[in-house]
Formats: sequence, C-alpha cells, structure tokens
Amino acid sequence: MNQELENVTEQFRKLPGIGVKSARRLAYFMLERPESEVKAFLDTIKAAREKICYCSVCCNLATSDPCDICGDARRDHSVICVVEQPQDVMAMEQSHEYHGLYHVLHGALSPLDGISPDQLKIKELLNRLESDEVKEVILATDPDAEGEATAFYLSRLIKPAGIKVTRIGRGIPAGGDIGYADGMTLAGAVQNRKEL
Amino acid sequence: MNQELENVTEQFRKLPGIGVKSARRLAYFMLERPESEVKAFLDTIKAAREKICYCSVCCNLATSDPCDICGDARRDHSVICVVEQPQDVMAMEQSHEYHGLYHVLHGALSPLDGISPDQLKIKELLNRLESDEVKEVILATDPDAEGEATAFYLSRLIKPAGIKVTRIGRGIPAGGDIGYADGMTLAGAVQNRKEL
Repeated sequence: MNQELENVTEQFRKLPGIGVKSARRLAYFMLERPESEVKAFLDTIKAAREKICYCSVCCNLATSDPCDICGDARRDHSVICVVEQPQDVMAMEQSHEYHGLYHVLHGALSPLDGISPDQLKIKELLNRLESDEVKEVILATDPDAEGEATAFYLSRLIKPAGIKVTRIGRGIPAGGDIGYADGMTLAGAVQNRKEL
Repeated sequence: MNQELENVTEQFRKLPGIGVKSARRLAYFMLERPESEVKAFLDTIKAAREKICYCSVCCNLATSDPCDICGDARRDHSVICVVEQPQDVMAMEQSHEYHGLYHVLHGALSPLDGISPDQLKIKELLNRLESDEVKEVILATDPDAEGEATAFYLSRLIKPAGIKVTRIGRGIPAGGDIGYADGMTLAGAVQNRKEL
C-alpha cells in the first residue's frame, strides 16, 4: 500500500503549488474515490493532451493550426500583443478590450534562471513582423524584473523596423487599495493619470 | 483549446483543497509539460488504483487481504486502535509508539452531513470483537465534535462486551504554543498532567 501511495504522492508533488502534505492528501483522495471518477480524471487529461498543439503563428496552445484567434479574419491583424504565457492570452481575452492578435513567448528573459532570448519564441515573433501587415506591437509581459527586461529587449529589436511598440499601462488594479499599493505601481498610476 | 482547458480545469477542481485559480494553473501545467511526464503521472495513478484494495479485516487501504498489519504475527493482536481515515493509520505508524492493530471507520458520525452508524465500518469492528483475542479498543477518532460523538457511541456499544475501551490522550502538541492553545486542549493537558 505504502509504495503505491508514495508513488502517487510523488507525482502530485511535481505539480506547481502542491506541497508534500497536499500531495499526500490528494494521493489518498485519488486512491479512495470511486473508480469511475478516477477514470474520468485520467481520461480527460489524456484526451486534452492528445488534442492540444501549438499554433505555428502565435505559439499559443491550440487545437488547430493556425489557432482560432490567428485564423479569425474579424480580428485586427495589424496589432500583436506579446505575452509571456498562454494563460495571459486567456486573461486578456476576458477583458474584452483587445481585438488584435497575440504572440506567446513562453517565458521571460532571466539570466539568473538561464533563460536567454533563444529559449523564447522571439525568432517566431520577428518573422511575423516581416510582413507589412503589422503596425503595432503591444508588449504585455509581466511588470516584474524579467518582464520589464524582456519588454526592453524586444522594443530595441522591433523599433528599428519602424513598427510602433507600446507597453501596457501601469496603474492601480480594479478593486485595489491605494494604501497598500507599492511605490512602483503608484508611480505608474500617477504617470498614467487621466483628465476627468 | 478552451474546451480542453476547461475540461481539465474542471477535473482538478474536484480534488480537495484545489480552488478555481489553482485548478486552472494545474490544467495549463498539464497541457504544457512534456508528454513523458504527463504519461508518468497518469500511469502512476492508474497502476496504484489497480493494485489498491481494502483489507477485509481492518478496512484500511491495502495491496493484500488481509493487509500487512493485520497479517503481521509480531504485532499485538489484543489491541485495536480505531481511527477515522486511512491517513490516520499512517500518522499513528509514524509515531512508532503503537504496535497493535487498527480499524478504519472511513468517517465519523455526523447527523448534519447525514453520516449515520451504518455508513461507517462499525459492523466490521463489532465482528472483530466477537473473538476473545481483543482485550482493548483505543478510540483514536479526531478530537472534534464528530470524532467525540463517534468515540462516545462506540464506547457505549463495546463496553458491555467487557472489553476495555480507552480514548487517546489530549494535550499540548509537540512544538505547540501554550499561549495559542484553545481551552479544550489546555483542559485536556491539565487533566493528563504527569508527575515528574
């Protein structure tokens, strides 16, 4: 029994944000829940993995190539929003404010973690910019050290081609508390102030 | 893409302690990690499930029937420690202080949650007590309302058979802080005080 439990615990330990206590709890849960539910769990992951591929244009997770967004003629093909991860695309889509295309870098530059430009989908981005269609690149990497460095690096690469490069605006998040906001956020919020 | 992601997210949502944000994070992780690791994850759970059964004696999770503990002649077969869940057996074993047998109830009495005695492995426990071998039953259900109610219920059932019934001791946990301990715990600790 213990060997099986340890094996399953170890597998859950490898998932992000799951500590050893949570992993054990999940392992017990998996060993005790009804057979049909375990089967549904395993089959769902397997089926999703079999369907998932990467879009050769934007490098986002997709079930078709090009993906639904890249293949959508109603979207604005003159703007590309560059993000770090596939989940950032989903977050942007939920804002319903952006109607252009995306490009997923699959990470951010981080010398400390050994992430250099050739490990990101930067070459793929530059290839897309060779067509005359693209007028603006919005850099929506995270507002942390790695994301800022990546945005700076990309802007230096892209600007010489005469394409407009913008960075997403900083400010107080919706529902945020000014008293708890850090200095960088407030500085961005002041710079981005709007006349009412 | 979104449908596959939602399907996997929904499956992770069903696991204990996983909220909607964590589930989505795990789903993205599952869709993006290397194929071989996903296969190892799925295969390990599947293999463990196929090997796991319940011991017909103590009702614990096992890979043989009777389980390793019930089948171990070196253990004290005159004492049965009654616990709520299989993980409680593992915790007790890690104490290296107990060398008797176990009985797993698979829950605790809870009228509010609709858990009545016939949904717990109480009949199986009483069957075990019919042999003359058992001299003591240690009630190690959790020290919460449901666990206490279960212990009280079992003691009333078992005592008339002339078997010694004990309840695990209450007190300050190792590494605990007296200033933060609740009244019930301190009351138990005072009652269980030892002369030095």
